[in-house]
Amino acid sequence: MEKASFPHRHILGMAELGRAEIELILETAASMKEILSRPIKKVPTLRGKTIVHLFFEPSTRTRISFEMAAKRLSADTVSVTASASSVVKGETLIDTAKNLEAMAPDIIVLRHPFSGAAHLLTRHVRASVINAGDGTHEHPTQALLDLLTIREEKGNIKGLKVAIVGDITHSRVAHSNILALSKLGAEVWVSGPATMIPPGIERLGARVTYKIEEALAGADVIMALRIQKERQGRDLIPSLREYARVFGLTPERVSLAAKDCIIMHPGPMNRGVEISPEVADGPYSVILDQVTNGVAVRMAILYLLLGGSREAVA
Amino acid sequence: MEKASFPHRHILGMAELGRAEIELILETAASMKEILSRPIKKVPTLRGKTIVHLFFEPSTRTRISFEMAAKRLSADTVSVTASASSVVKGETLIDTAKNLEAMAPDIIVLRHPFSGAAHLLTRHVRASVINAGDGTHEHPTQALLDLLTIREEKGNIKGLKVAIVGDITHSRVAHSNILALSKLGAEVWVSGPATMIPPGIERLGARVTYKIEEALAGADVIMALRIQKERQGRDLIPSLREYARVFGLTPERVSLAAKDCIIMHPGPMNRGVEISPEVADGPYSVILDQVTNGVAVRMAILYLLLGGSREAVA
Amino acid sequence: MEKASFPHRHILGMAELGRAEIELILETAASMKEILSRPIKKVPTLRGKTIVHLFFEPSTRTRISFEMAAKRLSADTVSVTASASSVVKGETLIDTAKNLEAMAPDIIVLRHPFSGAAHLLTRHVRASVINAGDGTHEHPTQALLDLLTIREEKGNIKGLKVAIVGDITHSRVAHSNILALSKLGAEVWVSGPATMIPPGIERLGARVTYKIEEALAGADVIMALRIQKERQGRDLIPSLREYARVFGLTPERVSLAAKDCIIMHPGPMNRGVEISPEVADGPYSVILDQVTNGVAVRMAILYLLLGGSREAVA
Repeated sequence: MEKASFPHRHILGMAELGRAEIELILETAASMKEILSRPIKKVPTLRGKTIVHLFFEPSTRTRISFEMAAKRLSADTVSVTASASSVVKGETLIDTAKNLEAMAPDIIVLRHPFSGAAHLLTRHVRASVINAGDGTHEHPTQALLDLLTIREEKGNIKGLKVAIVGDITHSRVAHSNILALSKLGAEVWVSGPATMIPPGIERLGARVTYKIEEALAGADVIMALRIQKERQGRDLIPSLREYARVFGLTPERVSLAAKDCIIMHPGPMNRGVEISPEVADGPYSVILDQVTNGVAVRMAILYLLLGGSREAVA
Repeated sequence: MEKASFPHRHILGMAELGRAEIELILETAASMKEILSRPIKKVPTLRGKTIVHLFFEPSTRTRISFEMAAKRLSADTVSVTASASSVVKGETLIDTAKNLEAMAPDIIVLRHPFSGAAHLLTRHVRASVINAGDGTHEHPTQALLDLLTIREEKGNIKGLKVAIVGDITHSRVAHSNILALSKLGAEVWVSGPATMIPPGIERLGARVTYKIEEALAGADVIMALRIQKERQGRDLIPSLREYARVFGLTPERVSLAAKDCIIMHPGPMNRGVEISPEVADGPYSVILDQVTNGVAVRMAILYLLLGGSREAVA
Repeated sequence: MEKASFPHRHILGMAELGRAEIELILETAASMKEILSRPIKKVPTLRGKTIVHLFFEPSTRTRISFEMAAKRLSADTVSVTASASSVVKGETLIDTAKNLEAMAPDIIVLRHPFSGAAHLLTRHVRASVINAGDGTHEHPTQALLDLLTIREEKGNIKGLKVAIVGDITHSRVAHSNILALSKLGAEVWVSGPATMIPPGIERLGARVTYKIEEALAGADVIMALRIQKERQGRDLIPSLREYARVFGLTPERVSLAAKDCIIMHPGPMNRGVEISPEVADGPYSVILDQVTNGVAVRMAILYLLLGGSREAVA
């Protein structure tokens, strides 16, 4: 009967969330999944609340997931896609945000190419801010949906061996997941070409190996990252073909992992590059569960930020 | 009082719909028009249902019509416009669709430049699929709104002479209409330049003539097709000017038809090419009625696919 | 208890609105602001009504403001962004509008690059039309939100000295404001480079001075206009730098105005050109209040056009 209220006004990154808060989000998300299993998947919980999706980078799937989450809770949504090319020293972001703020939305969901953009926003608006990805920094709702998926499959996160494979340097998904998984007691390994592993990543809580076999050996969870061609400049080193040959997730490589390992990918996939089609669509893949859980986690966050307690959902 | 339930999970084309099912859709659409004649044109019938509009080709008017239909029935809508240019062997369509599916929409409305895309989709998703135009193959909701319009004007379709004039080869509207109209007993004539009439079109149920006068003579219904410059490549044969001279619907040509003939066009019109302004805006034109009926037919389909019976609408 | 019904079917410009009607809109907007101050900022007043936003020019902020206003009143919205580049002699506008009309929306909100487009539209549709900016002609909802903001700050508009500074020639905001403010008894001064002041502007009710100091002296309200680089062609005369030097609103220039003057700008601002950051963000600025009032004024207009009386709001 106790009301577990959520202590944060914003969701900026996994760095800011404590273990108890992560648990509260995941448990609330589990309640939301119950709603999503009904024939009518909509509840009036957030009727009259307004959520602005402010996207300075195109991202159909993240935007749709947030929009779905809002609509399942009966909130109103407004979508603003802006170009970051005209941003001069962050001015456009702040002017745009202040203008939106003057229309009194309850939550602003921000996707922005600059690391730190969501933090910056909180200093200028009264609305709650959700970071939907800022540069190479964090993408906390992705990490939370990953945690939910792992917990559903494995029961617990503590003690699991998780291998994250790919371009760690440019991946906000990797950064948020390393922080979150190590906070919950998993043993996180990262692997990839030396050109894609940033120095000092161990400080976030990860072990580094350039030999993918070492990362995969006995792993309970394998997370492949998207090779983001557009972030690498013209001369991708290694080339896509070379990357696929050495680091691509093939059935052979996956056979090094634990018998009941699960395969994850934040999407969209480059099939045949970081992941082979057999693995992507194979029996260990939980990639589409991640998508389903994305809606549930985002529902949970919208709900908690707008003052709901976990008990009130059902 | 009997419940006439709809036997299909998808609406893919007029080829798949039997006469009884077409009748059920048209009768349901007539009930929907009654709703559209009220001051408040909205009913709560589909509250909590979610409809995704997945458009790989731009089509403002079809998308708006579907969106209006969904909103009149209180369904939630999510709009995804994607580029088909990045489609490699159909992969993007299926990956995109599987991701949307993982968010549990009730219906996916698909517009796609490849013939057969909607059929392909049904093999990969659990949601109902509505084909909103696939390549040069079918556009069943357009044919259904055309049927509704003809039935409103003529009472019955059986025995009517219908002339379809234009680029039959590239017109999914023509293909769906030939199938639908001949199924309901109309006598369907197609006419146009030899370069725009595909061999074997008679097998769908149409009679072919390259002399437009023969098609129009005594016609009860004249349907002009849009000359789709973008589909023809650079060297349009015949030229627009030549086409207009020989096949454009002018008042003189229309005078060959039955005294109470009706003029139809799926829009958007090239005035002065396939149809003269006098005809487009003249007394026989039912072109804007087609637009109104488009919303009603789409409401009927959404309703029937989601399990409604005709009796429950009122 | 008396019902003050609104006598217009459309909102086309401030030229068409009488003083009593302006007052009715502003009083209704004040009631709307009361709704916007509640935790749940949504009322069911326009449930089941449909509003089409038809934008032939991009304008995120005006579109979002109208969309917010509609959602706060529970109306359904459909957004159509069209390119005016394909407009041939106004045909596309009218064909597009007639097609939308056939779907029976209650209101069409139009933004169009051609002066007079909204008037033209009213001759072809049964829906109410709201002009959301037509070429260099009028932008009445902007003027109304400006009036509301001034009235909130100053209590009354009659007798105020208002200085409008910038490119008067190309500014529909200036035109609507000059008409509105002089109608309500303000003393309106316009100032800017000679190249930006159209001959005959005095006939709308403004006094002209090329010396900005004369316009600002003792002013109660200062309204800076956006220097629209895109409207000026390649050779902007004066240059941006020159404009900023002579006409930019700096703290020094603002000090010429009344002690309790207010600073307004329709946005988006070119900071450092027509307005300095210190003035834009300073204590006299009511620029973000204008944004808030935009939603309230648009709610009031939607409400009044759809038959509401002021008394029924609360």
